[in-house]
Amino acid sequence: MEAIKTKAYGAKASLIDSLSRLSRMDIERSAPQADEVQIDVLYCGVCHSDLHQVKNDWGNTIYPCVPGHEIVGRVVQVGSAVRTFNEGDLVGVGCMVDSCGQCHSCQEGTEQYCEGPVGWTATYNGYMKPDGSGYNTFGGYSTTIVVKESFVLRIPEALDIKAAAPILCAGVTTYSPLKHWNTQPGDKVAVVGLGGLGHMAVQLAKAMGAEVTVISHTGDKKADAEALGAQTVIVSTDKEAMKASELAFDLILITIPDAFDINPYVKLVKRDGALVVVGMLGKFKSASNNMEVAFHRRTLSGSLIGSIQETQEVLDFCAEHAIAPDIELIPIQDVNKAYDRMLDNDVRFRFVIDMQTLKDEN
Amino acid sequence: MEAIKTKAYGAKASLIDSLSRLSRMDIERSAPQADEVQIDVLYCGVCHSDLHQVKNDWGNTIYPCVPGHEIVGRVVQVGSAVRTFNEGDLVGVGCMVDSCGQCHSCQEGTEQYCEGPVGWTATYNGYMKPDGSGYNTFGGYSTTIVVKESFVLRIPEALDIKAAAPILCAGVTTYSPLKHWNTQPGDKVAVVGLGGLGHMAVQLAKAMGAEVTVISHTGDKKADAEALGAQTVIVSTDKEAMKASELAFDLILITIPDAFDINPYVKLVKRDGALVVVGMLGKFKSASNNMEVAFHRRTLSGSLIGSIQETQEVLDFCAEHAIAPDIELIPIQDVNKAYDRMLDNDVRFRFVIDMQTLKDEN
Repeated sequence: MEAIKTKAYGAKASLIDSLSRLSRMDIERSAPQADEVQIDVLYCGVCHSDLHQVKNDWGNTIYPCVPGHEIVGRVVQVGSAVRTFNEGDLVGVGCMVDSCGQCHSCQEGTEQYCEGPVGWTATYNGYMKPDGSGYNTFGGYSTTIVVKESFVLRIPEALDIKAAAPILCAGVTTYSPLKHWNTQPGDKVAVVGLGGLGHMAVQLAKAMGAEVTVISHTGDKKADAEALGAQTVIVSTDKEAMKASELAFDLILITIPDAFDINPYVKLVKRDGALVVVGMLGKFKSASNNMEVAFHRRTLSGSLIGSIQETQEVLDFCAEHAIAPDIELIPIQDVNKAYDRMLDNDVRFRFVIDMQTLKDEN
Repeated sequence: MEAIKTKAYGAKASLIDSLSRLSRMDIERSAPQADEVQIDVLYCGVCHSDLHQVKNDWGNTIYPCVPGHEIVGRVVQVGSAVRTFNEGDLVGVGCMVDSCGQCHSCQEGTEQYCEGPVGWTATYNGYMKPDGSGYNTFGGYSTTIVVKESFVLRIPEALDIKAAAPILCAGVTTYSPLKHWNTQPGDKVAVVGLGGLGHMAVQLAKAMGAEVTVISHTGDKKADAEALGAQTVIVSTDKEAMKASELAFDLILITIPDAFDINPYVKLVKRDGALVVVGMLGKFKSASNNMEVAFHRRTLSGSLIGSIQETQEVLDFCAEHAIAPDIELIPIQDVNKAYDRMLDNDVRFRFVIDMQTLKDEN
């Protein structure tokens, strides 16, 4: 079968090493296998992970790197064995495009914790075998993508398709821990950091009936936080307010994307409550103090995106509760500027690329 | 009512500052109030916390300090309102002698997490109010103690009273997290550190039906670990063995009493498994890596002793399953030598003081 010529934006080499930026490239997609779906990409969200990955912050980037794992598009072709999707369907693709399917985690429907030899296959920059072989995947900063049916999501009609893309990563990454730690009506939930993930967490927790507090390092986002549904906003440098919130929360969801000190937040968790870090994947800035942890049997945990089932659930949940990511639509030609603005914290709250602007390029 | 003259051993000042050691002193106990019980102390275990406290490792020691919170004795006098104990009953006192009784934690029967203004009252070195006032309590390195009925435990007849004392701290401190994290038959449990707490954890987890692994920094304790019921022993410096045990355990209970690096142990926890630190109350040696935590939704937690109900449960559980601390009975005159040997890791596995040797002193 003929390969599918595809326009894309990607990094040819590490942004740090070469000072290069994302630029236009041409890639090829294999034509869909029997169990695969070809999707015309309409919109793709810009996630902080995209920036981490192209900068090689995790030391595992394979170049060229075409980011994008918040993909909304329309089915244009299906393989012969595909049963759940038809041409024309509005669909989404999140962070994963495959997993081993055999391990406990896959069998139990938590593919994001796949324990196969190479783990789950990321939508971009995946996968590498332990010996360094394997293949690279290219993400949604592109005009078309081919994905296994079982990793394709259905986008509910009620959602605004321009704004839906961030639900596929920012949405499910915060929905999954809220569900897993059993958020109930009346629970006190704090969301630390009000960016792409945080602004979804506030809306989702509020819709689950929780009383939501936003903790931010500045007071700049107070009005935004309240508009999204937060009852209280605490500035993390306000020692009195932090002190007054000790032992206050059933669950604290931290969405800060870079290394930080976890200790000031530990004290805010109730006995038997949990602090879950979803943004930052690395070492904390300083060691945690087990005195604070043990004296109230708190738990410190982390959570990784969410399962395919949870991704469908959060799409449906957002449709049902009229929750939408708050997005700024950009042409793909502005993606480098968008990265700069993301680093400057100048985005309310997620950039989404209008892929028509790529299709229109020569 | 007349005060009760009591012989004791205690530290007059910090061991670090003064190079003083525990020495003989005379203290007074108040005669029992209506809801209190006076106990003739027969045996008292020597806990690593005793050493931390007399050395002022936690910066909160009030001198003079009479340690001892693993107390076995016989009731010699009861207050007028006491209903559950009679003169002659064999009883125990653990780490707590009081709590606020009003907060959520106390109301829910988890007094060890008391959220009252000063928390629960420790059997020794308790309690101080936030303004520094309050009173000091004196522990079980003494001939008699007076304790509120509701904080007194019943020692089952089936237990060897010489060996029972360590159940009151080392036993419940490991029993409580094993129960709280729902240890089930067939679960894989690792116990890190094989001292006073660790050797109880192995026996308790085994009796709950778990498959127990001991992780120790040397191979010296292999035979001991196996005799206590461990199926496997891993030396923590054996990189291959540690690598082979990644994702192996439902629960890892760490009983190391001093600051250590938690990261090598995090990798050994299964998805959704827990790592619980019970020995060390301070900062870890290095910051934990959220990549390891989040990628398998592991939880890092800590646990503090156990409730009064759990303390009775573990006493009864040990009697039912013929579990006994492995102790070395010492005269109180050897307590300083015992501290030195504890620091040298030269104890299998808990010193217990025969209080007759104090009664026999002039």
